[in-house]
Amino acid sequence: QLPGRLSGRSECQIEQITAREPNRRQVSEAGFSEFWDSGENEELDCAGVQVVRHTINPKGLLLPCYPNTHELVYVVRGEGLQGTVLPGCAETSEGGTDKHQRVYRYREGDILALPAGAVHWTYNHADKPVVLVALRDTSNVANQLDRNFRKFFLAGNPQSQMPQGKGHQGKQQQRPSWSEPKEHEGFNMYAGFDDGILQQVFDVEYEIVSQLKGFNDDRGLIVLAEYLHVLVPEEGEERRRDDNWIEQTICSTQLSANIGSPVGADVYNPRGGRISRLNSHKLPVLESLQLSAERGVLYKNAVLAPHYNLNAHSIIYITSGNSRLQIVGNDGSAVFDGEVQEGQLIVVPQDFAVIKKAGEEGCEWVAFKTNDNAITMQLAGRFSYIRALPEDVLVNSYNISPEEARNLKYNRKEGVVLSPRSRSPLKEAQNALLNTLFG
Amino acid sequence: QLPGRLSGRSECQIEQITAREPNRRQVSEAGFSEFWDSGENEELDCAGVQVVRHTINPKGLLLPCYPNTHELVYVVRGEGLQGTVLPGCAETSEGGTDKHQRVYRYREGDILALPAGAVHWTYNHADKPVVLVALRDTSNVANQLDRNFRKFFLAGNPQSQMPQGKGHQGKQQQRPSWSEPKEHEGFNMYAGFDDGILQQVFDVEYEIVSQLKGFNDDRGLIVLAEYLHVLVPEEGEERRRDDNWIEQTICSTQLSANIGSPVGADVYNPRGGRISRLNSHKLPVLESLQLSAERGVLYKNAVLAPHYNLNAHSIIYITSGNSRLQIVGNDGSAVFDGEVQEGQLIVVPQDFAVIKKAGEEGCEWVAFKTNDNAITMQLAGRFSYIRALPEDVLVNSYNISPEEARNLKYNRKEGVVLSPRSRSPLKEAQNALLNTLFG
Amino acid sequence: QLPGRLSGRSECQIEQITAREPNRRQVSEAGFSEFWDSGENEELDCAGVQVVRHTINPKGLLLPCYPNTHELVYVVRGEGLQGTVLPGCAETSEGGTDKHQRVYRYREGDILALPAGAVHWTYNHADKPVVLVALRDTSNVANQLDRNFRKFFLAGNPQSQMPQGKGHQGKQQQRPSWSEPKEHEGFNMYAGFDDGILQQVFDVEYEIVSQLKGFNDDRGLIVLAEYLHVLVPEEGEERRRDDNWIEQTICSTQLSANIGSPVGADVYNPRGGRISRLNSHKLPVLESLQLSAERGVLYKNAVLAPHYNLNAHSIIYITSGNSRLQIVGNDGSAVFDGEVQEGQLIVVPQDFAVIKKAGEEGCEWVAFKTNDNAITMQLAGRFSYIRALPEDVLVNSYNISPEEARNLKYNRKEGVVLSPRSRSPLKEAQNALLNTLFG
Repeated sequence: QLPGRLSGRSECQIEQITAREPNRRQVSEAGFSEFWDSGENEELDCAGVQVVRHTINPKGLLLPCYPNTHELVYVVRGEGLQGTVLPGCAETSEGGTDKHQRVYRYREGDILALPAGAVHWTYNHADKPVVLVALRDTSNVANQLDRNFRKFFLAGNPQSQMPQGKGHQGKQQQRPSWSEPKEHEGFNMYAGFDDGILQQVFDVEYEIVSQLKGFNDDRGLIVLAEYLHVLVPEEGEERRRDDNWIEQTICSTQLSANIGSPVGADVYNPRGGRISRLNSHKLPVLESLQLSAERGVLYKNAVLAPHYNLNAHSIIYITSGNSRLQIVGNDGSAVFDGEVQEGQLIVVPQDFAVIKKAGEEGCEWVAFKTNDNAITMQLAGRFSYIRALPEDVLVNSYNISPEEARNLKYNRKEGVVLSPRSRSPLKEAQNALLNTLFG
Repeated sequence: QLPGRLSGRSECQIEQITAREPNRRQVSEAGFSEFWDSGENEELDCAGVQVVRHTINPKGLLLPCYPNTHELVYVVRGEGLQGTVLPGCAETSEGGTDKHQRVYRYREGDILALPAGAVHWTYNHADKPVVLVALRDTSNVANQLDRNFRKFFLAGNPQSQMPQGKGHQGKQQQRPSWSEPKEHEGFNMYAGFDDGILQQVFDVEYEIVSQLKGFNDDRGLIVLAEYLHVLVPEEGEERRRDDNWIEQTICSTQLSANIGSPVGADVYNPRGGRISRLNSHKLPVLESLQLSAERGVLYKNAVLAPHYNLNAHSIIYITSGNSRLQIVGNDGSAVFDGEVQEGQLIVVPQDFAVIKKAGEEGCEWVAFKTNDNAITMQLAGRFSYIRALPEDVLVNSYNISPEEARNLKYNRKEGVVLSPRSRSPLKEAQNALLNTLFG
Repeated sequence: QLPGRLSGRSECQIEQITAREPNRRQVSEAGFSEFWDSGENEELDCAGVQVVRHTINPKGLLLPCYPNTHELVYVVRGEGLQGTVLPGCAETSEGGTDKHQRVYRYREGDILALPAGAVHWTYNHADKPVVLVALRDTSNVANQLDRNFRKFFLAGNPQSQMPQGKGHQGKQQQRPSWSEPKEHEGFNMYAGFDDGILQQVFDVEYEIVSQLKGFNDDRGLIVLAEYLHVLVPEEGEERRRDDNWIEQTICSTQLSANIGSPVGADVYNPRGGRISRLNSHKLPVLESLQLSAERGVLYKNAVLAPHYNLNAHSIIYITSGNSRLQIVGNDGSAVFDGEVQEGQLIVVPQDFAVIKKAGEEGCEWVAFKTNDNAITMQLAGRFSYIRALPEDVLVNSYNISPEEARNLKYNRKEGVVLSPRSRSPLKEAQNALLNTLFG
């Protein structure tokens, strides 16, 4: 269970963190992709990760490709099909049939695990847009190339772009200028091979090889696939076998799980909200990805108690509402103190302390964590180290009276998710006054 | 059992090693701390570690904090209490009581394991100073931040300093100037949060929040705690439960072990000295820290046979006496050849060969090793590779006669710790003469 | 089973790959060594490895030394003896005899595992030259020093060189100038220690110490050993015990295996050739080395189907014949498109796609892979992801008809090694015409 992550940099002084929207967009025939790129987002570089948000229109197919990193995907909206050809599974099937891959349905609130090097494709077979947010962990040792994210496309012309505004639905954020694309600048992998060799290898006509190379394809990353029928197991139906299309093979590691549903939340406070965590105990494939995820819901004005992530960075994407966030570094000053909005991304580095207070609309988020069994330590509330410390250590550390130490330890009965109002309105009033006088 | 350490640098040419005293000191109310900082100590940077020495006066409390690295501590002198809130232990205690931490006594010769991210505090409850030397492994992948050591204080004003000389006992090493502090420049973690939110979170008065933030605290890292009573299990008493104070929980991994005592030494030569090693076989928590330690005692003029650390750096701190050391790199030249004294620190890089010869007072040391199961290979003596090599390989490699090869293999009967005198005084005299003539 | 490799660099843009011959040569008394150095070979630096080729004349002894990295050796030609003093084995033999090491015979087609830090020596006891090609993995975390390969010699004067042409047999490649040696610039490890201390430590005469240091030795790395008799187990004879010379100890991990023989090939196409793979399932010591190897044989004009290495770099050394190679990166352009010849080395980075087409003489190679269980994914043929993808995904991805999709999936019945000719000469002719018209 050794972690295998590399720090992105030997020097990474974080003095200021910013809540960010994507810095680049690529419009395709049946959707668009928005990127938080490396080089543009200091905190992401420090955390050794990159993030993308795909919006896939109905009947949109994200072309088959393989990444050089593990990816963890959260389904923000919609439902669709995910296909993954697992490493080694196609190849080891010498005796059996030859159609070894995993195809599964996903829906809002699902986390999808996309192992590095495996071939992935995604299809929106429903009638409303799918929105996916994906974390790419460029620092995991599964990636032996440099720290840049690289996607190896197997079809289409991934550098092609539709004109802005065409083929693209959903809430458009007005933006004066997007930086130039830096990934997917080239063609797909077949484009680099010799025509004659490819013809020999596939034993097909020149025209097919030409289509394989996709030089004249202008559909972008997400193409319109009017007729795409894939038999997949119905939800709840275990390992349906269909020899014509899909076979659940021995390579049948579970690759997804839902954390959107209130059922099975790890923390639930009826007056405050809930937290659901997905780690490698619940979804074992995460052990090899060394990633995990947390889904959070805070009601209006509720507070997530101060805490730190002791073995992971936390990359938070706000899925709805807004929140005030304070993030504090080891010099005791806030590296972030402000509002984060739906659609924004913010990084809480390992060991940095954070408080989250939901706004008037409440706040929902998904947090990707760079450890398959991320641990948080509470700095207040029923599960905090303060409860654990002997009273005399508190008395002497904070220069307070034993009674004050007991207040600090026991006044707040709640644990992780704190209800919006302190339960003593009198104290509230007193405090407000004191703040005004001395604050 | 894969190691998970990162080389601190991609280029790290070690041409000269220095025995070093600390380069910085911070004086607190009840003790002082001396630092071997990164940036100031080339060899430590190359080894990817930093070192601190704390001197804690009687009734001194080192304030609660959590580090971004694993730490391995050796108790040079004194006895005290160590408190560690283990990751996950406070939080998982939903059903039970809420005071989950480990508090244990330590004494001279103990090694303490301080896992990264866990909250630690230390108290000197006895009547003489405690001296601790701590290795911080900034290269372990447990640290996902950059390679700098960072300590996240949870109380006090860690940047505050007492005037030099005040509040500080023990042997003072005169030093013209200390470099400016670079760590702990700021406040504790609570200082960065908003007063109102903290009041809400803890449900306490403004005054308590103010004390929590510690802005006006000038006691430094180690504060005087006249009254600090913690019930801890007596030595030898297993898992005493006291529901008011301390509970030995399911999170009861053993976090310390003694290597100071002659009993149980791994190597013992009654004419030369002894070596005691503490690895993850003996203290399993070291497996996750990927660190181990060695305690050595050489009598007057005894020699530690030439050897190298094949899977670890060795960071040696001299606890008493002095020693001549020769360290040889892969170009066959000595990167160090000199005396090391009590209180000095020296690094022997992985694979570099080293000989240690105690001075007139003998020499004692602790060596921290950057592998939880550090292996040494002997270059002379009964357990050396020379004994293992076929005679003819020696004859041809060294251009010597078969008899000479047998001398090389078998003359020295001892293994690791060699007695001060060669046991053939005649040869000694001959050699002295030959040295004079041809040396 | 977490990989523990570090990327050699944080930035490593590979835009051009070159098939390379060694850039440096060192001639010794009984052979010569040719180096692909770091700093001189961009792709090797990016892959975090270095390579050497030793040619050892009959009765040549490569001097005992220990490397700071794991090494994986392929025996290109000849047969000899390999001695390895395993870490910890000499030392733990307190109760028994003191000659704990492994000595084993090797022959053409063998892979030898040389763990980092262990003492190794090699002897050519036969009557024709031995040629060894060794990969050094400077990026494995077993190496805690910087990313440079370092060899710590225990005998001789490793910086010494014979004049060019002397003492050196075998096919000499004419070369105008070699770059200056950068490794082994110094003496052996004993040279750095004080004479008097070494005399005391070994309890031997000054003359022996002087020979140990080897200052006047001019034989280089590989010395002539006319009389070197070591009893080793006969091939097929399990664990022969000879108390005078060699003992197979509890430290008897198997350190070698043969991949040269056609028997037991993993892939065999009687019209195309074969592939034999050696991973940690077959040779468990590779799990700690995190390296594996592949031996390939392609008959005249046969093709290795396009594929990528999904969890490893592949470092290919051509042992005979020649081949056309195309290597394609994530921008869909060829980073290499040309011939590679016997004796040349070429790197295929992780995830990059490659096609190999043997020349008129056929082609044989060994590929070292930077993962103990390297996985390849096929981009064409019976085991490719294309077989696994649903037909409709192909139709939409490539804008082709269902019939064309089926051709792409099923026309090529072969898997990994493809026979030289497409099996439909008619199509061949059609394609040639189409190429001329539109290609």
